[in-house]
Amino acid sequence: MVEEVTTPDFDTYIAEQSIDAVEICPGWVELIWSDGQISRFHHIWLRDNCPCADCVHQGTKEQMFELVAVPADIHPLRAGVTAAGSLAVNWSSGDHTSEFEAAWLRANCYRDQARRDRVHQQITWDANTWSVPPTFDGLAVLADDAALYEWLIALRTYGATRLRNVPCTDIAIGDIAGRIGIVRETNFGVLWDVWSEPNPVTNANTALPLPPHVDLPTREYQPGLQFLHCLENEAIGGDSILVDGFRIAELMRDEHPEHYLTLTTVPWSWANRATTTDYRWRSPLIVTNGDGVVTEVRVGNWLRAPLDVPFDDVERVYAAYRVWFEMSYRPELQLRFRFQPGDLIAFDNRRALHGRSEFTDVGGRRHLRGCYTERDELHSRLRMLERDMRRRAVAAAGI
Amino acid sequence: MVEEVTTPDFDTYIAEQSIDAVEICPGWVELIWSDGQISRFHHIWLRDNCPCADCVHQGTKEQMFELVAVPADIHPLRAGVTAAGSLAVNWSSGDHTSEFEAAWLRANCYRDQARRDRVHQQITWDANTWSVPPTFDGLAVLADDAALYEWLIALRTYGATRLRNVPCTDIAIGDIAGRIGIVRETNFGVLWDVWSEPNPVTNANTALPLPPHVDLPTREYQPGLQFLHCLENEAIGGDSILVDGFRIAELMRDEHPEHYLTLTTVPWSWANRATTTDYRWRSPLIVTNGDGVVTEVRVGNWLRAPLDVPFDDVERVYAAYRVWFEMSYRPELQLRFRFQPGDLIAFDNRRALHGRSEFTDVGGRRHLRGCYTERDELHSRLRMLERDMRRRAVAAAGI
Repeated sequence: MVEEVTTPDFDTYIAEQSIDAVEICPGWVELIWSDGQISRFHHIWLRDNCPCADCVHQGTKEQMFELVAVPADIHPLRAGVTAAGSLAVNWSSGDHTSEFEAAWLRANCYRDQARRDRVHQQITWDANTWSVPPTFDGLAVLADDAALYEWLIALRTYGATRLRNVPCTDIAIGDIAGRIGIVRETNFGVLWDVWSEPNPVTNANTALPLPPHVDLPTREYQPGLQFLHCLENEAIGGDSILVDGFRIAELMRDEHPEHYLTLTTVPWSWANRATTTDYRWRSPLIVTNGDGVVTEVRVGNWLRAPLDVPFDDVERVYAAYRVWFEMSYRPELQLRFRFQPGDLIAFDNRRALHGRSEFTDVGGRRHLRGCYTERDELHSRLRMLERDMRRRAVAAAGI
Repeated sequence: MVEEVTTPDFDTYIAEQSIDAVEICPGWVELIWSDGQISRFHHIWLRDNCPCADCVHQGTKEQMFELVAVPADIHPLRAGVTAAGSLAVNWSSGDHTSEFEAAWLRANCYRDQARRDRVHQQITWDANTWSVPPTFDGLAVLADDAALYEWLIALRTYGATRLRNVPCTDIAIGDIAGRIGIVRETNFGVLWDVWSEPNPVTNANTALPLPPHVDLPTREYQPGLQFLHCLENEAIGGDSILVDGFRIAELMRDEHPEHYLTLTTVPWSWANRATTTDYRWRSPLIVTNGDGVVTEVRVGNWLRAPLDVPFDDVERVYAAYRVWFEMSYRPELQLRFRFQPGDLIAFDNRRALHGRSEFTDVGGRRHLRGCYTERDELHSRLRMLERDMRRRAVAAAGI
């Protein structure tokens, strides 16, 4: 008989190991799993994560429990494995019992190796890795979750992908982005056009060359993902360029550590020039997290505002910026390819720099449609697809 | 005769001082202003900011100039003041002259004091400062740019404001937010309801008390601004709570520096529990910039995921988190007030924590409408309003 266990979320957890032994230690509970692994969960961590109906609203799966409701030194009086294989804990407060599904505990174990295993791999690339980004079929992505999953894993890993066979309609790009999440509206609108215009509001809508850049570095929140869908490409010139900004950052760190330090610590300023909005932001060109890992780049030649840093920093910022720019032009770092109608590139707008060569549209137009969404929409969609896979696996096993 | 000077943006600059003297120094150009102030602009900075039609697209005001097009040691051959009072520079490349409007130079001077003067003041508050947030008239804000400006300055300074007399319609909140910028769509939709529902997808839509929190700490990009508009409030209970998260951070830094260090460096994890999305994010509860200034807080009791940090960090994170929570409940930090229909609170969602007491709606409903936009929409709108003021001032002066 399988007992119903309350879980703290809507996910499905598949038990691949069982709990062989439980020991209450001072400060934590130690579990030994059937594969020999050991998990240690602090007393307060377990109490905080109690999934019972008093602690978690069973409709929303959101906590009602507040930490301040229990003493800081709360600890188990007893802990053991139930008939269903769950961990049961009776608390020192005397009025509460918690029961944790074994598979949920295993999935949330925070020993070092388990934490490392949860980090998604990101692989940098250049023109020696491939000549075009990893390419997938747009119709399959629209119709099939397995194809969607394969594409999105590549997008998360490499930060640049291409779809082909995307229907050449004005709204198809919204359908593609909608497979991931909510399209982000900006001052360009929801879905927008890239083509040469007589009265452009941005250099993107001229026939000028565009140096490798991200879109909207002028915004505090640079869009996480960008989509560009080619509807027509009869122009002469206008080759597309993609450069892995994380690769440039790696090279900068290895070849020019002094410039790397400058670019990760001293902010450049960015400004959109417009008659209706005046977005500005300041940020280092290379953004790292607390562990020193590069998380985003912010660069766009024609969206730079006047540099606004202490006088003594100006020369080193310009020197570092110049080297960054030179690197972004290195042929061995640039993918250069030509859009065919129906092609769509989807890339991490805070990692993969995009650009184009100059073009002339006298003989025929170059017309792209574009839109944005966010990185965490991508991660949410991948988790939802994986959740569905687990649910189906459990259903198929007849559990 | 006033000569037309090309400027690098669409703004209007008002000349309050003129350039009295120009000196070419090694590395920079020194200007002495009519009020005795001195500005120093590096050679490369000036060349980079040349506003001429070869360097800046005159339709978009975006740069075409690229730094790599000139040598790093470019420098002026001559520099002087034109008849119109601008700075003119002839460059060592021999093929280029730049002309800079004096007022633009003054506005972009990067001496230390000028840079400090450009920082917007943010003032923290608590229940001794006032009993309700600074309050403005909603109809005036909708109709009049001067009223809008006054409100937005308060919103930027204090991160919490109230409007009264906002029309009690479903869309009025979108009209108010639209006075600032683009409303951000999330998994809750564009405009959404807060009321007690039989099958809620979030604890917000129960009658439960809500501890002081920000919305969507589960998202990489927490919404910068939140609006809550009361359409009905016949319920018993359901008082509104606002706490200045930056004030808590100040107290934490002063009273518990060890906890402050933990909360600014060790990430908590956040997760939305839902059947359609699975957003998660990890971030320190208090986020500081490179200068150690608090820029945002991230806290929401019922949106916490299981803590996922190295084993040895768990106890200190829980200890610090407990103190944060206790502080957010201190009566002297909490504004507590009751919504009247037509009231709207607008607050910095990454600074001002909001919450409510438990309520019962047996005798009548409590119904709020809500939406989000971003901090940089606020800053853009303020700049645009100030730009309009300058343009009108110049027009009024008949210049």
